[in-house]
Amino acid sequence: MASKNQIKNLKFIFEPKSIALVGASPIPNKVSNVIFKSLTEGNFQGEFYPVNPKYPDIHGLMCFPNISSIKKKIDCVIIATPAATVPAILLECANLKIKGVVLVTAGFSEAGVEGAALEKQIKEICDKNEIALIGPNCLGTLNPSTGADSVFLPMYKLERPKSGNIAFITQSGAVGSTIIDVSAYHGIGISKFISYGNATVLDEVDLLEYLEQDSKTKVIVAYIEGAKRGREMFEVMKRVNKKKPIIVLKAGKFAKSAQAAKSHTGNIAGSYLAYHAAFRQAKVVEAEGLEDLFDFMKIFSQPLAKGNRIAVMTNGGGMGVLTADAIDQIGLEFANFSEETKIKLKEILPSFGNVANPLDLIAEADADKYQKGIEIMMNDPGIDALLIITLFQTPPMDERVLNVLVKFSDDKRKPIACIMLGGAYTTNYQRYLDKYKVPSYNSPIAAVKTMKKFVEYSKFRNSVK
Amino acid sequence: MASKNQIKNLKFIFEPKSIALVGASPIPNKVSNVIFKSLTEGNFQGEFYPVNPKYPDIHGLMCFPNISSIKKKIDCVIIATPAATVPAILLECANLKIKGVVLVTAGFSEAGVEGAALEKQIKEICDKNEIALIGPNCLGTLNPSTGADSVFLPMYKLERPKSGNIAFITQSGAVGSTIIDVSAYHGIGISKFISYGNATVLDEVDLLEYLEQDSKTKVIVAYIEGAKRGREMFEVMKRVNKKKPIIVLKAGKFAKSAQAAKSHTGNIAGSYLAYHAAFRQAKVVEAEGLEDLFDFMKIFSQPLAKGNRIAVMTNGGGMGVLTADAIDQIGLEFANFSEETKIKLKEILPSFGNVANPLDLIAEADADKYQKGIEIMMNDPGIDALLIITLFQTPPMDERVLNVLVKFSDDKRKPIACIMLGGAYTTNYQRYLDKYKVPSYNSPIAAVKTMKKFVEYSKFRNSVK
Repeated sequence: MASKNQIKNLKFIFEPKSIALVGASPIPNKVSNVIFKSLTEGNFQGEFYPVNPKYPDIHGLMCFPNISSIKKKIDCVIIATPAATVPAILLECANLKIKGVVLVTAGFSEAGVEGAALEKQIKEICDKNEIALIGPNCLGTLNPSTGADSVFLPMYKLERPKSGNIAFITQSGAVGSTIIDVSAYHGIGISKFISYGNATVLDEVDLLEYLEQDSKTKVIVAYIEGAKRGREMFEVMKRVNKKKPIIVLKAGKFAKSAQAAKSHTGNIAGSYLAYHAAFRQAKVVEAEGLEDLFDFMKIFSQPLAKGNRIAVMTNGGGMGVLTADAIDQIGLEFANFSEETKIKLKEILPSFGNVANPLDLIAEADADKYQKGIEIMMNDPGIDALLIITLFQTPPMDERVLNVLVKFSDDKRKPIACIMLGGAYTTNYQRYLDKYKVPSYNSPIAAVKTMKKFVEYSKFRNSVK
Repeated sequence: MASKNQIKNLKFIFEPKSIALVGASPIPNKVSNVIFKSLTEGNFQGEFYPVNPKYPDIHGLMCFPNISSIKKKIDCVIIATPAATVPAILLECANLKIKGVVLVTAGFSEAGVEGAALEKQIKEICDKNEIALIGPNCLGTLNPSTGADSVFLPMYKLERPKSGNIAFITQSGAVGSTIIDVSAYHGIGISKFISYGNATVLDEVDLLEYLEQDSKTKVIVAYIEGAKRGREMFEVMKRVNKKKPIIVLKAGKFAKSAQAAKSHTGNIAGSYLAYHAAFRQAKVVEAEGLEDLFDFMKIFSQPLAKGNRIAVMTNGGGMGVLTADAIDQIGLEFANFSEETKIKLKEILPSFGNVANPLDLIAEADADKYQKGIEIMMNDPGIDALLIITLFQTPPMDERVLNVLVKFSDDKRKPIACIMLGGAYTTNYQRYLDKYKVPSYNSPIAAVKTMKKFVEYSKFRNSVK
């Protein structure tokens, strides 16, 4: 548990005017060289000072023997030196009134008794001096909008996402790395990324409180193995989730996997039931796996749903059938079209076409049919949300369909989610929709599961307004 | 139900020395123009004759007024003319002793009473003259090894897969199009693709019997909405599945979706329970959705598993935890390592490393560690299958890791499945693995679910040997 000031001091980590990297190295692919490169080759605009007594300069940039010798105001220090050296470096930070520290080094409590003692020292120094410290044993932090980037995996292997409004907090660096990478690939914009490792100074609760206040963050995604302060976490989640949706993936659910998470709780299986119950009570959006995490986060670009009555539109019969199966199985309602809607839809169908839900526009459908069909459904008060299947393999389906989808997503009358599946041609279009925040899914089940979660969250949010 | 000779005559559709396309058109993106282009621009090596009385030539190729005027032996006729014209064309085929016909045209029994009468006529002509006819109301057929391609979606939108050993039969053209496209994108090789539409002459049962005998086909994937001959289908599935694994996705499971499938069965929900029970009895591999279909088919490149004891290896802790969660939840056994295995694994771990299952090689792992670790596990008789997590975001993970994975997949001692997730860099590597038939998955749940199905199928196959 950190103090209010420590939580506030996270601003020095995410919006630093100057960063010092202690343990900076010229050796390719070393953690401290990767961070050096990200900060010098990425979009960080502030001052950057490498620190290492071994080198007079690194890649042509002057290197300082220690932080004190920099003689400039330092907002954030990134430490990548062996565990044993860390307390002394933190004391130096304290003397220099530095308030933001990211400690990526491993070898603390997770490595045994000696490391645990070091970790205790670290906590004491930070708490006494109001230092906001992330880590140790973490992958680092990232704020794409300022370029403050301590993620120690190289940019050529791990793309950095653009700036956006989704925040990630993760206990696991490995999972964190996939989150950043996939977000970048899918054009998902993020506000803050925090791999918090051992959570020595700032833990989940503190980070949720920080993100609650962070104006750039609209959605919070959390990967959690085991929270130190369970009760407090749920209290904060409950409060924050009323303003900003929280999507959470709990790992280490069962005896064997909890062992893999090296958790020391006696009764882990029981403990997950407690987590699950608490998530339900807080109405946070629980993901079963990583695929859910990515599927769910995309839907929150959409306006809240007023109910659970779903309309489906397709240009391929079989995909409509599979979507209907998923709706039945996962449990959403099929919207009943109004008489007016039926008459209007009939006009855009071929003579042998059948007005039904799913509505099959058949393979001849083009952007114009989709435009008209969606508009009709937007105007039917008996429809709360739309699942739009767009198989791009047919000749009439072209870029103009993308523009129709972007337009209806942007005008935010009702939530829409798209379903498409294919090879290079379709994937290319899907990346385009990602870019414009139109949620799209490769399978009916993924889309329906996501819409179900979104409808549930919408119901909750509508009830607390 | 077709005769033995009709089933045999499918060879004229899949291995034709000559193809006539009736209704050939020069108008871009028309069904009959798309097929024209696929046959002239794809890898079909036989003779090709466009037929249409309206044109003396199409794109520079001489066009015939009717099939009879070609005056050459024709193996296969593809018909893309309006429904009403079809019986006469089929009679012409019968006169010329043509035995293979693909009829893509729609407007038969699915379109009303008139169409149903036409469809009946078609069946009579084909049965009397031993014509193997696929369709009507279908997407077409494809044999990548001969280039015989009547799939009427253009190659620039719908990539064609390479030649391989997986056969697809699908009742839905829309689902069929995604199957072809995704297979091509993921480098999955196919033996035959058959979109069979109304199944007027040859139905699921006939096609399964054909594929049973087809030496190129090792795995059969079927998308089925409703089988006309349920009992016969299950009998054939039961027999074929003992030699060639059948992966099946049943759509139109519930009342609403069955309505979408325009099924005329009275009690559909009950009917799905009957399908499901029969699938279980036949021990075929049932997929819940399209994602399962693609996930499952990839694993059958692997040797059968001797049991359900799984070992997990990872270079990222959190991904190991998530995989352990999935194993616990989905129901596989964690392998217990032998003492010898433990000693050997200890040697490749860093001093603070812990020999456990999942085995965490930590972020420093490289190809050499994976090579040694997998070899040790291959030699432990207490391990039946391996799930190998390879996060490519860390600097030591390079192309050499791919070669290690391909090598162990190729030597076929135990089944392996890989788990990786990332952006462009990782996706690129994943396509490489696809190419060499190393099954890889983007999520622990997908990999574990697939391995569970494979272990179950292995048990069945081992029992009938």
